[in-house]
Amino acid sequence: MSAGDCSPNTPASSGAVRTDASALTEVDPSGIPFAQLDPALLRAQRTSIKWTRFPADVLPLFVAEMDFTLAPEIRDTLVARIEASDTGYLDSPGPLADAFAGFARDRWGWEVPGAYVHLATDVATGVVESLRVGRPAGGRVALATPTYPSFFEMFEEVPFEVVEIPLTIIDPDHAPQARLDLVAIERAFASPQGIDAFVLCNPHNPHGLVHSAADLTRLAQLAAQYDVFVISDEIHAPLTHAGVTFTPFAPIAAAAGALSVTTTSASKGWNLAGAKCSVIIAADEAANRLLLQLPPETPVRASILGLHAGVAAFAKGREWLDRAIAQIEANDALFAELVEAKLPGVRYTRPAAGYLAWLDFSAAGLGENPHERILTDAKVALNDGAAFGEGGAGHVRLNLACAPATIIEAVDRIAAILPGARPA
Amino acid sequence: MSAGDCSPNTPASSGAVRTDASALTEVDPSGIPFAQLDPALLRAQRTSIKWTRFPADVLPLFVAEMDFTLAPEIRDTLVARIEASDTGYLDSPGPLADAFAGFARDRWGWEVPGAYVHLATDVATGVVESLRVGRPAGGRVALATPTYPSFFEMFEEVPFEVVEIPLTIIDPDHAPQARLDLVAIERAFASPQGIDAFVLCNPHNPHGLVHSAADLTRLAQLAAQYDVFVISDEIHAPLTHAGVTFTPFAPIAAAAGALSVTTTSASKGWNLAGAKCSVIIAADEAANRLLLQLPPETPVRASILGLHAGVAAFAKGREWLDRAIAQIEANDALFAELVEAKLPGVRYTRPAAGYLAWLDFSAAGLGENPHERILTDAKVALNDGAAFGEGGAGHVRLNLACAPATIIEAVDRIAAILPGARPA
Ligand SMILES: Cc1ncc(COP(=O)(O)O)c(C=O)c1O
Ligand SMILES: Cc1ncc(COP(=O)(O)O)c(C=O)c1O
Repeated sequence: MSAGDCSPNTPASSGAVRTDASALTEVDPSGIPFAQLDPALLRAQRTSIKWTRFPADVLPLFVAEMDFTLAPEIRDTLVARIEASDTGYLDSPGPLADAFAGFARDRWGWEVPGAYVHLATDVATGVVESLRVGRPAGGRVALATPTYPSFFEMFEEVPFEVVEIPLTIIDPDHAPQARLDLVAIERAFASPQGIDAFVLCNPHNPHGLVHSAADLTRLAQLAAQYDVFVISDEIHAPLTHAGVTFTPFAPIAAAAGALSVTTTSASKGWNLAGAKCSVIIAADEAANRLLLQLPPETPVRASILGLHAGVAAFAKGREWLDRAIAQIEANDALFAELVEAKLPGVRYTRPAAGYLAWLDFSAAGLGENPHERILTDAKVALNDGAAFGEGGAGHVRLNLACAPATIIEAVDRIAAILPGARPA
Repeated sequence: MSAGDCSPNTPASSGAVRTDASALTEVDPSGIPFAQLDPALLRAQRTSIKWTRFPADVLPLFVAEMDFTLAPEIRDTLVARIEASDTGYLDSPGPLADAFAGFARDRWGWEVPGAYVHLATDVATGVVESLRVGRPAGGRVALATPTYPSFFEMFEEVPFEVVEIPLTIIDPDHAPQARLDLVAIERAFASPQGIDAFVLCNPHNPHGLVHSAADLTRLAQLAAQYDVFVISDEIHAPLTHAGVTFTPFAPIAAAAGALSVTTTSASKGWNLAGAKCSVIIAADEAANRLLLQLPPETPVRASILGLHAGVAAFAKGREWLDRAIAQIEANDALFAELVEAKLPGVRYTRPAAGYLAWLDFSAAGLGENPHERILTDAKVALNDGAAFGEGGAGHVRLNLACAPATIIEAVDRIAAILPGARPA
């Protein structure tokens, strides 16, 4: 099958970015081949949600997939596995445990014992299966909102009653910054009904919030005190920006005596969401006893191709990762300038990790549902903030893991529909 | 990563097949390159359960993975997807619905409406999630035994109480043949406690039993009469042997008014178990209404690489499949001769589909646990029949999807430990 066969859409010039973007390509410090990141070309080559959900005249900046081409180390590994017809079953993390432990040690100083690493299909499955073994009777699950919408779907599978604890937003009208509301978290934990489990998004999607060690320590103390099982979703951690310190929750939980597991994978950092392989890591012996009760089919549901891609990512994909992060940082800086210059009334929460831009459009004059207006009138597909829970309405989420030219194009399209916009 | 890097085991001459096998290579009618199917080479190249669970001196003929190299159409498709960095999210079967429907129509005359096809991680996940939506309160699930051991693990996930309905075995002491015991099935369905769901293995693992249309029609009538939800696991169906008629259950269920879904994939037919993609197909509108209630994350948990491999398999991999089936049939004939000549007391149930050989060792003089003796003393890893449920004790399952030389080697190793064996 040729690449073109796979896409239901043919390349369309209507989706092409403007040529004035080429200036940016020249000053690109990252080395990522931007020439390949033309949305029209990506649409012709790729078949994932990002490139098939909307017609060709829509610029897709919604789902958390990167436009960047795969790390060469991952590509070579996958091709070698296919050439070896190595497409059989897995039943354990095998070399992925070591590869992840090496990455966690080198990047974050976190020592991960191999026996604490368990295999699963993806991070979402890791969250659901962890909840099933950790809190088999269900109960009440809390999380800080606004956050990743699929968490709400996961909780229905178990099922759990959901308790939303809004993030504190500092300086919301100018330069918004989010933080866990630990007072509200304690209030929820201590309430008569109590909380059975807390899902920590670390770093937090959609704000790109890297929690401080102090906040995580307090959360761990509260979890230990009130017997709350904490699942730390650390899928965005490898994409922590340069100069920012990411703190894994597991060592802090272990020190505080809080029951906790971490779910993560290479899928966000290296764009392997469709390769289907993740790990669930016990914070301590008590948590590991829980994970040893995972259904025996759990690891069998991970892909052997995804596993080898993850091994290559964590062990050999660090240079590519640093280039990707540098590109994301450059895109963030560019985007902040463009929002300031061209999107009056829009407030941008700048990420310290990941490639997601969280935008408050409530004062931008696009009405109650800016996401819909932007999709229909500007032909840019973003995520609807309302799906992110309390505090999300009036917001949209935009994906920065693309060419700068794509960001420029998106801002221009959106600027053109803002009230009082002058023709470009 | 080179292929050799991936395997914890180094190629070992102790696992090599005998040179006298080369005679068979010459008369091989299938075109599959047997020269590449030397277990020592496979062990050096592959990292799946089959090649990592046991040390190099053990010949691994247990788990249902094939030694055959991937169909070139699948290999090319996967490499093209990787070159396109097409590793993002899925949320629907997309082109897999058509590809499967085309195969089902051409091979079995089964018309599958695209809207009835739902995506899942693998067939086991399809069974579990179908049970969850079809019988959310759990209850009693019945199945014919001996059968695929992982079914019992799946039922614990839901959970269900398991009712085993032993197969009828015709001519057990000479040429055993299995058949559904429809009288016992009716008795179970009609019992005071009743049966909530029936998992049909169609064709049936481990006997390679292709149920007759008459038996399936009767089962569907009983299911309709007693309101039993039937999940038909048809993963082995593409491997139905030449001249045998496989009957999909869905059209029969629809005609009888029985509530039923079918779970299947390309993973057994084309050796893609580790690629992680399957389909769940509604038999009719009522079943489709159930499947529309699957958790929204269900399709997201399928691999995009697995999906494209499945599309290539069903749409373009038919010639390869026919060659694989021809090889399996030749291996079955060879194996039957060898059992007759060299394994006195062993009774072989010959498959009409698939590559699994079900062997009754209870009169072969290896004691209560032939599987263990064969592993320890003959250094051949088979599946332990006791894990297959009622009627399985004293049996072992052997995998025929390998080079003829490997089968000869396995029989020789086993023959050497049988009581009264003469040195080879
Ligand atoms: C916080 C968070 N968790 C989980 C996921 C999904 O991960 P996976 O695809 O491995 O299930 C995402 C995807 O964007 C995410 O942002
Ligand atoms: C009858 C049957 N169902 C399901 C499976 C497992 O399928 P999957 O790997 O797609 O879950 C097997 C594997 O051998 C099988 O024999």
